[in-house]
Amino acid sequence: MTDLSISAVNHQVRLAARPLGLPTGANWQFSEAPVALPAEGGVLVKVLALSLDPAMRGWMNEGKSYIAPVALGAVMRAGGVGVVVASNNAAFAVGDHVAGGTDVQEYWRVPAEQIQRGGLTKIDLRLGTPAQWLNVLGMPGMTGYFGLMDVGQPKAGETLVVSGAAGAVGQTVGQLAKIKGCRVVGIAGGPVKCEWVVRELGFDACIDYKQAAPAGAAGVANWDAVREGLKQHCPDGVDIYFDNVGGDILDTVLTRINRKARIVICGAISQYNATSAVQGPKNYLSLLVNRARMEGMVVFDYAARYPQAVAEMAGYLREGRMKSKEDVVTGGVKVFPATLNKLFSGENFGKLVLQVAPD
Amino acid sequence: MTDLSISAVNHQVRLAARPLGLPTGANWQFSEAPVALPAEGGVLVKVLALSLDPAMRGWMNEGKSYIAPVALGAVMRAGGVGVVVASNNAAFAVGDHVAGGTDVQEYWRVPAEQIQRGGLTKIDLRLGTPAQWLNVLGMPGMTGYFGLMDVGQPKAGETLVVSGAAGAVGQTVGQLAKIKGCRVVGIAGGPVKCEWVVRELGFDACIDYKQAAPAGAAGVANWDAVREGLKQHCPDGVDIYFDNVGGDILDTVLTRINRKARIVICGAISQYNATSAVQGPKNYLSLLVNRARMEGMVVFDYAARYPQAVAEMAGYLREGRMKSKEDVVTGGVKVFPATLNKLFSGENFGKLVLQVAPD
Repeated sequence: MTDLSISAVNHQVRLAARPLGLPTGANWQFSEAPVALPAEGGVLVKVLALSLDPAMRGWMNEGKSYIAPVALGAVMRAGGVGVVVASNNAAFAVGDHVAGGTDVQEYWRVPAEQIQRGGLTKIDLRLGTPAQWLNVLGMPGMTGYFGLMDVGQPKAGETLVVSGAAGAVGQTVGQLAKIKGCRVVGIAGGPVKCEWVVRELGFDACIDYKQAAPAGAAGVANWDAVREGLKQHCPDGVDIYFDNVGGDILDTVLTRINRKARIVICGAISQYNATSAVQGPKNYLSLLVNRARMEGMVVFDYAARYPQAVAEMAGYLREGRMKSKEDVVTGGVKVFPATLNKLFSGENFGKLVLQVAPD
Repeated sequence: MTDLSISAVNHQVRLAARPLGLPTGANWQFSEAPVALPAEGGVLVKVLALSLDPAMRGWMNEGKSYIAPVALGAVMRAGGVGVVVASNNAAFAVGDHVAGGTDVQEYWRVPAEQIQRGGLTKIDLRLGTPAQWLNVLGMPGMTGYFGLMDVGQPKAGETLVVSGAAGAVGQTVGQLAKIKGCRVVGIAGGPVKCEWVVRELGFDACIDYKQAAPAGAAGVANWDAVREGLKQHCPDGVDIYFDNVGGDILDTVLTRINRKARIVICGAISQYNATSAVQGPKNYLSLLVNRARMEGMVVFDYAARYPQAVAEMAGYLREGRMKSKEDVVTGGVKVFPATLNKLFSGENFGKLVLQVAPD
């Protein structure tokens, strides 16, 4: 059961050193290994595409988090999609498309135990493309779905603001909130993203946090624009803020929340490369005045309910009620280091996907 | 229906200027007015004691909060207890003890409309002393009760940490959490308060945040002591943190919270006199990692349920399961300005009460 050319080489990207601030070439190491056939009960997956996520930056740090750090010298952790090219497991046939923790490499040899633990999932390409399975039908989509529905608890007529609106999580959150009857205002960097979010995704408005910032100054933000934009586009205040960025945007939104508002803390990409202390929300006492709540979430907690969310969102995709955008970078694993850094400069437009092999 | 000597003078304390930082004498103005008999449907109350609360500092600021600021030139807002000395309202008789928004003055002339809105409540001195009616049976007690029960949602076996443990809200929260089966660790300033919290109130431990700080340096804190104390006294982490202080203590506790922890934001006395920006919790991403929640509360929202909480806590007082401590300052309204500032230096020990007239 294999169509694997036995001479294949597995190119891998390993974590060489823990970064201080933005990752550089010195943090990575490239390695090659012969591709080995699967062990008893295992399968071998050829990786097609990898999901590049802000959370990866956290996995590179030492120390306790919601998941263990990537060990020095280990292949960098990543989720991805691929196709089974050799199988010793009756549940998976050569040619099956799958998703799981492929890591940053060309071939993923999945042991039987990992399959038993549910670490390998078949994906149905009739529901979405491989890139969509890394986006709205994958981790970012699940994050947006459960963060919004379970933590944000949207009610029709409420106003939702989402930062990173054009990003992987943000696009799902905003579209889903529209479907649930909310007024939806995005925050994103640059007019192209903002226009797309409104025209293509149907958000009610999108605030450009880089608006009128010095030309070409990547990452430079204009907090007055955010403040004014919130006043203008959220005349009834903010009931739900879905935060992917932290920092000054979180602080600005805190000044506009309503009573009993819910702030979903999903991420804080503005702070992930901070070399000094993380910037705490100095307006957090707005939670007190407004009897509001700020709550963190981690998508893995909802794993048992992924199928339900996938079914619902695949329906929206099919009906054209939801769109998805992926920023697919080609070039294989060797461009992984440079591609990852696009997330932190805000250069990516849509869910950042690294294509490892053609579909 | 009056035993009022018609020659009585009402001494009042008014807000003269909005403070920058800690209030000074320049922020206050003393005035006198003749005492007037109640209008149709109203009553006249002789004030016995006033509640001095950290929230007063916020009321002195300009700008939107959960309650309107005190107007410049107006009598300073305060809650208090008193005795009816003249009545034109059939529901209140001379000699009735009452609680309400007396403000900082010796006589409170309550109009009919305020009584109709529920602004005057009879208190039963068999359930507690006037000072206790400003403490565990009053606003601080109600704040502790609903903040803990509704927002904190304690479960037996969980660990609760409360800052300002010897203060008005803290003493109620800790004792109530013990009654509900929690492990309770207080944080307070100085060995006397800490010892009292453990020996008299039955907390499992109390961390002295001033421990080994330079002698006589009021307000100087030792964050290492807090960190080490939390490690030592909360071996299973922190499930509920009831925060009255904000600042570095909040940040330190955030590093020790458990999954699904609840942080009740009740106040932030360390920040109320800040002349620069409030210190935001730089460890707020611990909420994300731990799927935890930080939520604000304002006691007024629970007004309809005060009687239920009063009945429960009066029962605990009667049974000796709950104690209360008030720091009663005599000297009348003229010592109000200096007495209020005791709150911000942490000099008060127990609920700070200003006695205006003998019971």
